[in-house]
Amino acid sequence: MQQIVDFILELDRLKGITRKTKPIGLERYENSAEHSWQIALLAASMVQYAAAPVDVDRVVKMLLLHDIGEIETGDTIFYAEEGWPERKAAERACVTRIFTLLGEPQRSMFLELWQEFESNTTPEAHFANAADRAMPVLLNLANNGQSWRENGITYERVVRSVSGPIQNGCPALWE
Amino acid sequence: MQQIVDFILELDRLKGITRKTKPIGLERYENSAEHSWQIALLAASMVQYAAAPVDVDRVVKMLLLHDIGEIETGDTIFYAEEGWPERKAAERACVTRIFTLLGEPQRSMFLELWQEFESNTTPEAHFANAADRAMPVLLNLANNGQSWRENGITYERVVRSVSGPIQNGCPALWE
Repeated sequence: MQQIVDFILELDRLKGITRKTKPIGLERYENSAEHSWQIALLAASMVQYAAAPVDVDRVVKMLLLHDIGEIETGDTIFYAEEGWPERKAAERACVTRIFTLLGEPQRSMFLELWQEFESNTTPEAHFANAADRAMPVLLNLANNGQSWRENGITYERVVRSVSGPIQNGCPALWE
Repeated sequence: MQQIVDFILELDRLKGITRKTKPIGLERYENSAEHSWQIALLAASMVQYAAAPVDVDRVVKMLLLHDIGEIETGDTIFYAEEGWPERKAAERACVTRIFTLLGEPQRSMFLELWQEFESNTTPEAHFANAADRAMPVLLNLANNGQSWRENGITYERVVRSVSGPIQNGCPALWE
């Protein structure tokens, strides 16, 4: 049980990892913990629109875990186009360290879910990635394009970067 | 799909509902969205310690949804001892309104999960309530009793208020 307490207190750090998007109506930036909560519920809400049948409980867990690697790397805007291999290696080292605080079966299960999201080859990962990519778009659309404006991201770049993952996992959402 | 977008943007407001506890090392108070994320992962991490066998995926969804009623009522510290019936009625009205933004089956499923957490009679609800009660205790223990000190909550009152729910859902965590 002490291992689990160490693990959950380590996860607390994700509340301090800020993203580029602001919650609607708030002046602060959102953090990766509350973002993970929101997209887990987005996925649970739209599961019938997944491109292929998915195990929604697996998707939810994947989304709750998918950003934990940022505890040591911070968040990088999805439109960044350089340094991804180095960043992903650092995130993998981070989740391996943190998940290893837990015993089995959670340690292996959480690592597997994290890797599945990153590899993005299963229907569950496609759908989870669609939810993750769509949420900042939905917030920007409701927020006068706040993070796009602040970071100089053009409409064409948004479409180029997110249309593939969203269409791949949840075509109805893209429409 | 537009209904789902309306729903998820409405949920965004939970990021603005602050609790009494601060994340470790941060000066701000935590919000109910990131709290929900954290306790969902706490439950997933300690499921083998549940007082009775539970469907962990049901527990995770229950915890992701359990605070949504606060969108209209705000958070009240668990040690508050007055006004609970009025507060719970207001929360119920809030989740009914918000979940009704969704179509079926999510509308009924989410309402049922929210009600199950509140009624606290199933093994899943016992375990979910244990995680919810335990998390601020764990943060306070790591945080020099920050929210207890700020709100004048004594050791005896903490024990009296949380020991029952935690022991009921997850005795090993209480030990």
